[in-house]
Amino acid sequence: MPFGTLYLIPVPLAEEASAKSFTPFLTDTVNSIKEYIVENEKTARRFLKEAGLKTPQSELIIHDYGKHNRADGTAHFFKGLQAGSDVGLMSEAGCPGVADPGAEIVEKAHRMGIKVVPLVGPSSILLALMASGFSGQSFAFHGYLPIEKADRSKRIRELENLSERNDQTQIFIETPFRNNPMLEEILKTAHPKTRLCIACDLTSATEFVQTKTIAEWQKRIPELHKRPAIFLLYHR
Amino acid sequence: MPFGTLYLIPVPLAEEASAKSFTPFLTDTVNSIKEYIVENEKTARRFLKEAGLKTPQSELIIHDYGKHNRADGTAHFFKGLQAGSDVGLMSEAGCPGVADPGAEIVEKAHRMGIKVVPLVGPSSILLALMASGFSGQSFAFHGYLPIEKADRSKRIRELENLSERNDQTQIFIETPFRNNPMLEEILKTAHPKTRLCIACDLTSATEFVQTKTIAEWQKRIPELHKRPAIFLLYHR
Repeated sequence: MPFGTLYLIPVPLAEEASAKSFTPFLTDTVNSIKEYIVENEKTARRFLKEAGLKTPQSELIIHDYGKHNRADGTAHFFKGLQAGSDVGLMSEAGCPGVADPGAEIVEKAHRMGIKVVPLVGPSSILLALMASGFSGQSFAFHGYLPIEKADRSKRIRELENLSERNDQTQIFIETPFRNNPMLEEILKTAHPKTRLCIACDLTSATEFVQTKTIAEWQKRIPELHKRPAIFLLYHR
Repeated sequence: MPFGTLYLIPVPLAEEASAKSFTPFLTDTVNSIKEYIVENEKTARRFLKEAGLKTPQSELIIHDYGKHNRADGTAHFFKGLQAGSDVGLMSEAGCPGVADPGAEIVEKAHRMGIKVVPLVGPSSILLALMASGFSGQSFAFHGYLPIEKADRSKRIRELENLSERNDQTQIFIETPFRNNPMLEEILKTAHPKTRLCIACDLTSATEFVQTKTIAEWQKRIPELHKRPAIFLLYHR
C-alpha cells in the first residue's frame, strides 16, 4: 500500500479569527483525515472543532508532540502514514515548523519518502512583512534575540547593519511578556532614522501594524505587554 | 472624515486553487470595497470574480500599478483612502509586497497614517518553507540570484556558508524558464551533503515539495521548465 500524505495545517493566531484563517480546503482536509500529530492535544481538539470538524472527536488518533513527549522519539507517529493513512500536522498557532515546532516531523517525512502538502493559513511573520511596507524582495527572520541586555543591543545594531548592507528587512520576535523591555531596547539602540514596524495582535480585533522611524516611535510608545508582536527593522 | 483602510489581499498562486486560497473574510472584504490598487487590471478583475465578488465590475475603481504606470507617480491612488474609502491592494499572484510589487504603496500608506490590514492567503515562500522540513526558527529570502554563471555559483556557495554559519534556511527563486539551468548550477556547485528543497507548482494539481541531499537529487533530476518553483538550501 502507498504511504499516506502528511498535511501541514495552519492554526489561527487569535481567538474568534476562524473566518480570517480557514480556507474551504482546510475544512475539507480536516474532515478527510482522522490522525494528527500536534504540539498540544487540548488546543488541537479545540481548533479542529472551530475548523468545522464533523468526525466525532473520540474517533481521532492524536499524537501529542509536546516537549514532554519528545524523549520517546517520534517513530511511532509515522505508523499510520506508513500504513497508508493521511495525517495532519499542527502547532499551537500559525504554521507548523515556522517559528514553531514541527520541522523535525516534516524532515523525517521527507527522509521516509512521504508526500508533504502545506495548506494556506495564517503566519504572523508573513502578515507582518506584507503589512510593513518594507522590502519583501529580501528579508530574514531571526527568531528570538539574546535576552541579556548588552548582547541584545549588540544584536540590534548587527541587524541594522545587515539591513543597510543587504537592503534586507530584519524580522524578530520576543516572548510577549518581554515585549515592552524589548521595544525600549530597540528605541534606545537603533538609529533615529531606522524604520521599525510593529505588528501586534494579528488577525484579532485589537490588531495593529504600524511603521515609523525610531524617532517617531520615541514620541509615543505603544503598550505591548503580553500581546503577541512581531518586530521588523529596516535601514537604508 | 477619517481615512479609509488599505487591505492587502493575497491572490491565488495557481489556476483552480480558489478553495485552497480564499478565507471567508477575504470574500467579505472584496464585497465591501469598490476601489483597488493592482499590479495588473485584467488579472485583478478575473481574481475578484473568482473570489466571489458580487459588485458589478463596472462599479469598481481600479488603479493599475503596472510598470508602465509608475512614471506618473502614485499620489492619485490615495485620493479615495484620504476621502474615507477602503481600498484593496493586490499583486498578480501571492501576497502583495512579498517578492512582488506593492511595498511602496504600503510604505506610503504608513507615512500618511492610513491603517493597513493584511489578509491571510497563499505565499509560495511561506508554503515552501513550512513544507521543507528545514529550520523555520531562522531563515532568509534572497529573491533572484545573479544570472551570470560564475556570479551565480559564487552566490550559491555564499548561501551554503551562511546556512552553516547561522543555522539558517536560505530561500531563493528563479524565472520559471530558467529553472532547469538554475537547478543544474545548484547540483554542480553545492556540497553533496547539503540538502535542497524544491517546491514546485504550489497549490496546483501538479504540486510537489521534496527535500533531498544534493547527491540524491543528482541521481534523478526533476523537470522544472516554466513551472513556478522555490529553492531552499540548508547545510549544517
